[in-house]
Amino acid sequence: VAAMVPDTALTEAALFAQPFMRTLVGLIRAEDSYGHWDRKSDADLVRPFVLTNEGREAVLIGGEPDPETLHRVEQFYRAIGLLIEQRSRLMTSTLMSVGREGAVRLILTVGRLVAHDAKLTDVHRFGFDDLQGLAQEGEAAIAASLVVIDQYQEAARD
Amino acid sequence: VAAMVPDTALTEAALFAQPFMRTLVGLIRAEDSYGHWDRKSDADLVRPFVLTNEGREAVLIGGEPDPETLHRVEQFYRAIGLLIEQRSRLMTSTLMSVGREGAVRLILTVGRLVAHDAKLTDVHRFGFDDLQGLAQEGEAAIAASLVVIDQYQEAARD
Repeated sequence: VAAMVPDTALTEAALFAQPFMRTLVGLIRAEDSYGHWDRKSDADLVRPFVLTNEGREAVLIGGEPDPETLHRVEQFYRAIGLLIEQRSRLMTSTLMSVGREGAVRLILTVGRLVAHDAKLTDVHRFGFDDLQGLAQEGEAAIAASLVVIDQYQEAARD
Repeated sequence: VAAMVPDTALTEAALFAQPFMRTLVGLIRAEDSYGHWDRKSDADLVRPFVLTNEGREAVLIGGEPDPETLHRVEQFYRAIGLLIEQRSRLMTSTLMSVGREGAVRLILTVGRLVAHDAKLTDVHRFGFDDLQGLAQEGEAAIAASLVVIDQYQEAARD
């Protein structure tokens, strides 16, 4: 059976079994108080996080960033924060600042520590090449944050 | 001569000779590209930072905070950040997030360290009882941040 699974890419089922993707999908479904999305697949729900090169070029930039895009940025980092909390057993806090022309800075703090510091120069075009890219970048941010927390445990526990 | 100085309060001249007040006034004057405020005293320039109890009650809250008030919050913390930089010789970075109903969170980071974390629940009413209160709170935030930086030097230098 294993031979039928392409070794270059995870199957979609395996992808959505990963903790980061499960958490992100959970956050999205948690906003669906009336069950409108019950029939939507996990892949349907996270599709707006994927932006192909063509899609990226088609995005109109300039002006205020789209609130839905900003909400996706928040969901992405909230999922990261939740998993950091589960794995470190320390509280996280996220601060997002939206500047001019789509510049967004996002800081994830744990105690007195800046565990993750992201600068998005062009938030209008926030998105990942594919679902695997989304999952990988989420897990990479969590792993990097946990390394920093481990390195500066006292500041993180302050 | 010393006996003529009231011992309960600094004279205005001494107050504006303090590093925090000098820096704050300097930041305000730096925005006056055309010299319109050349004839204004330092006290005139920082007067909007003072809000008496009566003034505080008169402020209409609700809705978006006044941009001028938010700008004063930024100036106050920028002055704090500049003095932390001078005294610690480390770069600071400030992130302000304006939430709903005048809730503002402001984080001042040094390297990977959160040197100062301020939550203003009601930014519409940002202001100090008097000029001395403004100077004291500025200096207190600087002093407290320097203690934290000293405590977590490695994170601050990361």
